[in-house]
Amino acid sequence: MKTVGIGLLGAGIVGGSLIRRLVEEHSAIEAKTGLNLELRRVAVRDFAKERSIALDAAVLTIDPVDVVDDPNVGLVVEVMGGLEPAGELVLRALRAGKPVVTANKALLAARGPELIAAAEESGVPLLFEAAVGGGIPIIRPLSETLAGEQVQRVVGIVNGTTNFMLTRMSEDGASYRDALEEAQTLGYAEADPTADIGGGDAAAKAAILASLAFGMWAGIDNVYHQGIDSLTSADMKWAAELGYTIKLLAIAERLEGGVNVRVYPAMLPVAHPLAAIRGSTNAIFIEGPSIGELLFAGPGAGGEPTASAVLGDVIDAAREILAGAQVAPRIQLSSAELVPFEDVQTKWYVRLEVDDQPGVLAQVAGEFGRHGVSIKSVLQEGTGDDATLMIVTHRAAESQQRAARSSLEELDNVRSVASVVRVESAAP
Amino acid sequence: MKTVGIGLLGAGIVGGSLIRRLVEEHSAIEAKTGLNLELRRVAVRDFAKERSIALDAAVLTIDPVDVVDDPNVGLVVEVMGGLEPAGELVLRALRAGKPVVTANKALLAARGPELIAAAEESGVPLLFEAAVGGGIPIIRPLSETLAGEQVQRVVGIVNGTTNFMLTRMSEDGASYRDALEEAQTLGYAEADPTADIGGGDAAAKAAILASLAFGMWAGIDNVYHQGIDSLTSADMKWAAELGYTIKLLAIAERLEGGVNVRVYPAMLPVAHPLAAIRGSTNAIFIEGPSIGELLFAGPGAGGEPTASAVLGDVIDAAREILAGAQVAPRIQLSSAELVPFEDVQTKWYVRLEVDDQPGVLAQVAGEFGRHGVSIKSVLQEGTGDDATLMIVTHRAAESQQRAARSSLEELDNVRSVASVVRVESAAP
Repeated sequence: MKTVGIGLLGAGIVGGSLIRRLVEEHSAIEAKTGLNLELRRVAVRDFAKERSIALDAAVLTIDPVDVVDDPNVGLVVEVMGGLEPAGELVLRALRAGKPVVTANKALLAARGPELIAAAEESGVPLLFEAAVGGGIPIIRPLSETLAGEQVQRVVGIVNGTTNFMLTRMSEDGASYRDALEEAQTLGYAEADPTADIGGGDAAAKAAILASLAFGMWAGIDNVYHQGIDSLTSADMKWAAELGYTIKLLAIAERLEGGVNVRVYPAMLPVAHPLAAIRGSTNAIFIEGPSIGELLFAGPGAGGEPTASAVLGDVIDAAREILAGAQVAPRIQLSSAELVPFEDVQTKWYVRLEVDDQPGVLAQVAGEFGRHGVSIKSVLQEGTGDDATLMIVTHRAAESQQRAARSSLEELDNVRSVASVVRVESAAP
Repeated sequence: MKTVGIGLLGAGIVGGSLIRRLVEEHSAIEAKTGLNLELRRVAVRDFAKERSIALDAAVLTIDPVDVVDDPNVGLVVEVMGGLEPAGELVLRALRAGKPVVTANKALLAARGPELIAAAEESGVPLLFEAAVGGGIPIIRPLSETLAGEQVQRVVGIVNGTTNFMLTRMSEDGASYRDALEEAQTLGYAEADPTADIGGGDAAAKAAILASLAFGMWAGIDNVYHQGIDSLTSADMKWAAELGYTIKLLAIAERLEGGVNVRVYPAMLPVAHPLAAIRGSTNAIFIEGPSIGELLFAGPGAGGEPTASAVLGDVIDAAREILAGAQVAPRIQLSSAELVPFEDVQTKWYVRLEVDDQPGVLAQVAGEFGRHGVSIKSVLQEGTGDDATLMIVTHRAAESQQRAARSSLEELDNVRSVASVVRVESAAP
């Protein structure tokens, strides 16, 4: 009998689903994989909490170190989230030679290279399929199937909460407030939704995707991120009029001189495969010279899909334990240069509130031109004394776009730069 | 230096692309993976043929056994195709303890269990990511990431030639003949396109997908397959009118009592994610209780994408060689029961050429009813003395549908059963 003892850190939504799978589907998993996966220790926050699957009291503990140190635990699953104590526990397990499966994108984005080095030193796997794209298999395809591909670009919709909100805003004209409230009611958004709507969650995932696609570590601090909180339903409407839809994109891209990783809401042509990704669905689009274009889509969050990805990793790690392998590192981190976001060529959509006077458009166009940004299209809508200008520029360095924006803000006839959304199309 | 010597069987389209990658991108691959992949022996059919990448004459051989037996070859890549001598060469390599990477779906479908057993016995990997879906990573996600999922259904568009043809027929009204000729001109279809248009190629891939999804081996002989050769542009037009599009689908499905695997052209609701897959693109749609719905899409054929998937496998196998692992089997074959296609509940669209006389519809409906098949919708189009009846039925056992069809063929007023296309929707 091929038996592996599993220790679980965290019994929340994902942990709870995983417990159910390991208990209820124990024999189905055994029939399919030949593995006897035994859940031997579970660290919980609250002993008294009622659980849908009753576990033996001896299995539960309040102290997560008990789980890691239990000699009957050969494989540690970390689904507690957060940076600490998760980080120290994962390191402790790896240093003790125990494979670790984690879904913790924040931890990986913050301390990836350190954790990978610890896993390598002990020769045990550190697997994290569930950290990006929930139930979508993306980590393994990127790090294994596409290991030989000189990936050009990875563009993902990797945050289900914001994609749900943007879908409601664009398809049903919902306001930002209403869309957020609905996302919270449906359980997509946390009570504190900052990481989702501010783009921080997507930035952590972008950093991980970049590391796998390009074999380098961007580091979360080098990932520019802008959230969706300044978008209005007017922007959605204008995007539609221009033939675009707005999505919060995580982009990792190989440019001349190096790699850039960034997150922002962007206008995508409605015919782009990612434009069709609706609601809380996630999707990742990969471009490469040999592979052409690949699309992966599926449930990006939720206990069940995420637990499914965690379970896949558990089975993989268990197979490796039983094969007695000194596991070769999955990720080779090179020192590809990073290109600062300021130097990346971007295309802007800018919405300006202006005085409805002759000559305003000429002034505005002049400022763009002065900073080397040329204009692709302008839409003007009058509303009495005021007017709204919707401008889409051609590509220019992000730094030039920003300089133009600053100049515009100082013009007397420009009341405000109401909105900036970058425009993405196929590779330039 | 982590060096692995590679032997290549076949230097055709995929083999040629792989040679180029291994030579031209040698240092890029080394930078990304830390592996020195050395192409040491290549079996070709013709010495004299001019090649875009010149290889040392000592590397080339006419005898593929030289490649397998070369002591400097530690890993064998088989991209020669066909059943023999590919089968014996793969077995010979595995028995010699050399990992094998193959893109040969026909060989795997015919002799999968035997090859897997040989790999297991020697404790070396047998990898075949490129055998299904060309460059789309699907084998690894199914066999590893989803190893713990009780997959319900896998539905794929896995033949690019026929999808190209169906796209031309439905979008541009091309005739079957013209679409086929165009596919041949563009190099999608072979000179002998039988395996593509007859569904045999898709059936081999369906058998492989089923084995990974359900941990069992269907065996190619148990896979019902029907091609697209009886479809006309009239069927495409009627499908559109009914809100469907016609795709050649490979379906592997868990039913009560077991698993069924089959291939046929089917009507899909236009809103189904697979309905949007156009041209030579392939896509695989996976449904499971925990994972919900996953979609993988990308280039299903072509030298470059297929070589990309082969290269990913080569890197994976090389890592395992260097880790010195006794590799655990990736596939556990159980003995899940097969459900014969006759017992599967199907929904039919039937196009009948009938005499335009009162009472014909009543007769036709009577025959369906007599065989336990109820009718969902009927469209009738008169053309002088003749009429065309387009009937969509509710679900009934395939055997009942077939019995009804036979009875219809015997009615005096029915001139012919011009077309049968099954109708697929979301899970029933």
